[in-house]
Amino acid sequence: MATLTVPSCVPSPAEDCEQLNKAFSGWGTNEKLIIDILAHRNATQRNVIRKTYSELYGHDLLVSLGKELSSDFERSVLIWTLDPSDRDAVLVEETMRKWKPCNHGVLVEIACTRSCDELISIRKAYQTRFKKCIEEDLAVKIKGEFKKLLLPLVTAYRYEASEGANMALAKSEAKILHQKISDKAYDDDEVIRILTTRGKYQLRATFNHYTDGFGTELVKDLECDPKNEFLAALRATVLSTKCPTTYFEEVLRHAIKRTGTDEGALTRVVTTRAEVDLELIKQEYMKRNSVSLEIAVMKDTRGDYENMLLALLGHKDT
Amino acid sequence: MATLTVPSCVPSPAEDCEQLNKAFSGWGTNEKLIIDILAHRNATQRNVIRKTYSELYGHDLLVSLGKELSSDFERSVLIWTLDPSDRDAVLVEETMRKWKPCNHGVLVEIACTRSCDELISIRKAYQTRFKKCIEEDLAVKIKGEFKKLLLPLVTAYRYEASEGANMALAKSEAKILHQKISDKAYDDDEVIRILTTRGKYQLRATFNHYTDGFGTELVKDLECDPKNEFLAALRATVLSTKCPTTYFEEVLRHAIKRTGTDEGALTRVVTTRAEVDLELIKQEYMKRNSVSLEIAVMKDTRGDYENMLLALLGHKDT
Repeated sequence: MATLTVPSCVPSPAEDCEQLNKAFSGWGTNEKLIIDILAHRNATQRNVIRKTYSELYGHDLLVSLGKELSSDFERSVLIWTLDPSDRDAVLVEETMRKWKPCNHGVLVEIACTRSCDELISIRKAYQTRFKKCIEEDLAVKIKGEFKKLLLPLVTAYRYEASEGANMALAKSEAKILHQKISDKAYDDDEVIRILTTRGKYQLRATFNHYTDGFGTELVKDLECDPKNEFLAALRATVLSTKCPTTYFEEVLRHAIKRTGTDEGALTRVVTTRAEVDLELIKQEYMKRNSVSLEIAVMKDTRGDYENMLLALLGHKDT
Repeated sequence: MATLTVPSCVPSPAEDCEQLNKAFSGWGTNEKLIIDILAHRNATQRNVIRKTYSELYGHDLLVSLGKELSSDFERSVLIWTLDPSDRDAVLVEETMRKWKPCNHGVLVEIACTRSCDELISIRKAYQTRFKKCIEEDLAVKIKGEFKKLLLPLVTAYRYEASEGANMALAKSEAKILHQKISDKAYDDDEVIRILTTRGKYQLRATFNHYTDGFGTELVKDLECDPKNEFLAALRATVLSTKCPTTYFEEVLRHAIKRTGTDEGALTRVVTTRAEVDLELIKQEYMKRNSVSLEIAVMKDTRGDYENMLLALLGHKDT
């Protein structure tokens, strides 16, 4: 359930490009016009607009946007306009280049909430853009237990069919997870193996067996030490695999509630989910915070950035 | 340069199926007819024959072949008839199921001599056939240093473009490899990282820098302990990445020269390379052994198995 709204009658790509070019011309930039066009076109339409713009004006639309816009608004428009696989490749590269353990979420959520074929497209887009493969960068830039978790997570091509989770296996692996977590052996080979190689449906069965067998959720058991970033990465792996909607609601909640909004996370979740499941995430946000995500965004952001996010959130007045 | 020969005028798939069905009927099986057809059809043609056979006779051609044939001949025909990605998936599964460190070659050669897109097709074929993913089986069945090498090797999606190997990087990583190999730190993280994540062209530049800088080939430096199977796996990784033709010649040479032919390896190399580069491997074999691969095969095998291999080797009289 996406939040993206596309008008029933969409102008031709050439008309959109002409309007965008107009928005860049003369005194000042017409930010509203940019939002009106780009925030209401789907990925295929945006790709055609970029291609047409390049043919008509001889340079990349993203370069023009970069010259005209600035700050969080610029980033939200640029990140949104990119093709989804290319966008994820950019997010992955940026996260690895500026690697800090507290930024594990970007890599975990891309690895765990995209389909296996989407992950392959992201790896292809990464090669096209950066002339190297994700795993060679990851293996150089990320060390220790984080590498041990993230490398197999990002390179996985997991079994996705929903038929027939193996219940005996789920039970035995729930037991292994419980034993290792109880022993605080968080980066144990078996924990990593289970979380990074089993398919999503199999893992959900394992998490259910964990709850049934041990009377507590695995996610809860991974909350025992809030300062342990690796534990947080494991928890993100489990939560984003178990229920992406709940995971993304939590990322948004933390981005908005902390002192000084985390615009990076806010932009990332809104732009990457607007065409996927942002409607469900909004419902989850409302349930959890008793305030709508739009209202929360209005309180925490302003100007063109606010308008861009609200447009992607499908807010009625934008 | 393939050795497979396909007649200039190929019968229709229905005619081929009719002939195959005839070969199975009456007293005894007409093995020659089976070879005449299947060993002279390319992968696409064999796929269409299987599909047509199933439509015409209501069961899988492979099942019929399995009932009629036996021993090494059976295996060579079945393995050959499979679609290449599916065939590799079968070889991978079989190797992991009956895992012995001395069988590392099958996994290493599939990971290092297939293109990254072929590797993805193999991973898809594995899921379709076995309802799970390669990495979850590999991570369960293979332990220790072999897992450390083979898991990233099989799951890699390496950068393949030939333009611009990074020479400074090649030099520095040749130095790392030399240091670690000198220290006998064969399963060191850095050795594994370099060999499993760098693209083939980059690695070849690294191997050249190794030779230039240290006066000996990396492959030679990995021959110091013939009894160390992990060292042999590293050597196979380097050799099959550096030069698949040389690697496959060596596998064939060892398969033929040892006491009692290694039919498993012989069948595997002939069937998996007949449509790819077996002509080059044959030339390499002739150079290295002063006898043609066909003559060597004739000396070491017999009957229908011999005829099947010779047909795939493009032998004139078959």
